[in-house]
Amino acid sequence: MLIVPEREIADLMTRQAAFDAVEQVFAAMASGDAYNFPVVREAIGHEDALYGFKGGFDRAGLTLGLKAGGYWPNNLEKRGLINHQSTVFLFDPDTGKPSAMVGGNLLTALRTAAASSVSIKHLARRDAKVIGMIGAGHQAAFQLRAALEQRACEKVIGWNYHPEMLPNIEKVANEAGVPFQAVELDEMTEADVIISITSAFAPSLMANHVSPGTHIACMGTDTKGKQEVEAALLAKASVFTDEIAQSVSIGEAQHAVAEGLIQESDVAQLGAVINGTDPGRISDNQITLFDGTGVGLQDLAVAASVVDLAVRKGVAIEVDF
Amino acid sequence: MLIVPEREIADLMTRQAAFDAVEQVFAAMASGDAYNFPVVREAIGHEDALYGFKGGFDRAGLTLGLKAGGYWPNNLEKRGLINHQSTVFLFDPDTGKPSAMVGGNLLTALRTAAASSVSIKHLARRDAKVIGMIGAGHQAAFQLRAALEQRACEKVIGWNYHPEMLPNIEKVANEAGVPFQAVELDEMTEADVIISITSAFAPSLMANHVSPGTHIACMGTDTKGKQEVEAALLAKASVFTDEIAQSVSIGEAQHAVAEGLIQESDVAQLGAVINGTDPGRISDNQITLFDGTGVGLQDLAVAASVVDLAVRKGVAIEVDF
Repeated sequence: MLIVPEREIADLMTRQAAFDAVEQVFAAMASGDAYNFPVVREAIGHEDALYGFKGGFDRAGLTLGLKAGGYWPNNLEKRGLINHQSTVFLFDPDTGKPSAMVGGNLLTALRTAAASSVSIKHLARRDAKVIGMIGAGHQAAFQLRAALEQRACEKVIGWNYHPEMLPNIEKVANEAGVPFQAVELDEMTEADVIISITSAFAPSLMANHVSPGTHIACMGTDTKGKQEVEAALLAKASVFTDEIAQSVSIGEAQHAVAEGLIQESDVAQLGAVINGTDPGRISDNQITLFDGTGVGLQDLAVAASVVDLAVRKGVAIEVDF
Repeated sequence: MLIVPEREIADLMTRQAAFDAVEQVFAAMASGDAYNFPVVREAIGHEDALYGFKGGFDRAGLTLGLKAGGYWPNNLEKRGLINHQSTVFLFDPDTGKPSAMVGGNLLTALRTAAASSVSIKHLARRDAKVIGMIGAGHQAAFQLRAALEQRACEKVIGWNYHPEMLPNIEKVANEAGVPFQAVELDEMTEADVIISITSAFAPSLMANHVSPGTHIACMGTDTKGKQEVEAALLAKASVFTDEIAQSVSIGEAQHAVAEGLIQESDVAQLGAVINGTDPGRISDNQITLFDGTGVGLQDLAVAASVVDLAVRKGVAIEVDF
């Protein structure tokens, strides 16, 4: 079997490879070729850690396995390690034998960024020029860097609960040669694309902060109770997601569904748009919203992709297991 | 991190080490120090395979992780590989980083054998002399070999649906210097300890095949619908198990509970007997029954044990992950 340690991922994986892997697996999910297993997530009662497994099988890509790991909130302060720790294990679907083990930390950041970019490619207006960022943490930089490759962006505007963090994303915009402006939430009406990437339990972006024709990618809500945008915004928007069952239970759509503003049947799969079985955006005035909840198949897809790259570059460690 | 490939396990792991690991973790489960996560088990729609994850955390032993793998029914005929394929992954509970990867095939056989042996140690009469085997497949040999070390056995009797397989267990008995006799099911009344290890969907061992004072270990039922012994036998017996929730839903006790013959509260944890908080056997006429359903913590416990042995013997492969 092959091992690709965390330290190799940055040199191997490209945003394009992550984008392609995530786009393909979203399409496979929508066509019924790939599915995610039930998620295991446990507060283990040690170091305040959350630990669990996200598995799945992609029959089209023949990718089987899981991401294992979670969140160790004391890692950084106590040990100088990052708090999110994850590892992807791939298996040969023909035999059940393990085929690869891959560091999952950077891959998780890249696949999350790829998901909002795939939604921008398929749902944002072609003439989108202004990207609005809600959130300016570590992951926000990944989201913005990937988003800037999807449209001819002329300006990035950003808001964060802690404004002192905005230079994180200003730097990314400037590296791409795009000016950045810190704004108030009600100035988000200027944005053609909004990416929300926070860990909030109350909405920041309200319905009246969004102009007609905007595409919004909500990337921060993956747990019951979390919320980034006003539920009324989902009622005004055409809502798409990676996985409908997660969207309405632990994703951004949970609140609009609970309040009766939308129904599960109002949420469509982004993969269906990729496959062409859903028209996606049908007018320039329509608000589209992608509820990115994060699924195990994304992790498996980018891990399989990086294993291929590692083999080609000769850096995969081979172990006779 | 450390890697212990499947090929090393046979030379490293002893029945005693497996016994100790399983006994300790059963005790930790009963005292609330260790718990199993929800089991993921999926028919993936490829090669007729069943694949999934059994995870858990033992706070006492600081063992965290999962066994991943399953059953690939075409492996042997198509590829000369064994059909059960599994791998254990251990994680550092302090940081969430992977600490070890261990071949899980032989370990699974050893931990299942250890479980019935632990039940014999704690529940069978001390003067037990005759072991009765129901089932004579690959796993039956493991169960018998481990059981013979628990009591001064003078005779092994055995029954199998396919009698031509009985030499499998006769060989094990003879290697231990104990005579073997093939019997009909109604002759199982001679046994002081009965181990049932079959994959049946209808009972073989009936209540009237069992004498007072016998200890029975039912080791084959791990799925809804499977059944090895008559439900009425559980009503006559004091019932113990590894994990109560599994026992009454997918274990041997599922049928007696469904028929209203016993209740969930009639099933006790074997770990409580090990800890001394449950008296276990209280008379020489009592029938005791262990419903061994198999839990992820057993796999983690034997894997952690074999990693220690591999490090001591210098055969663990170290990978800078």
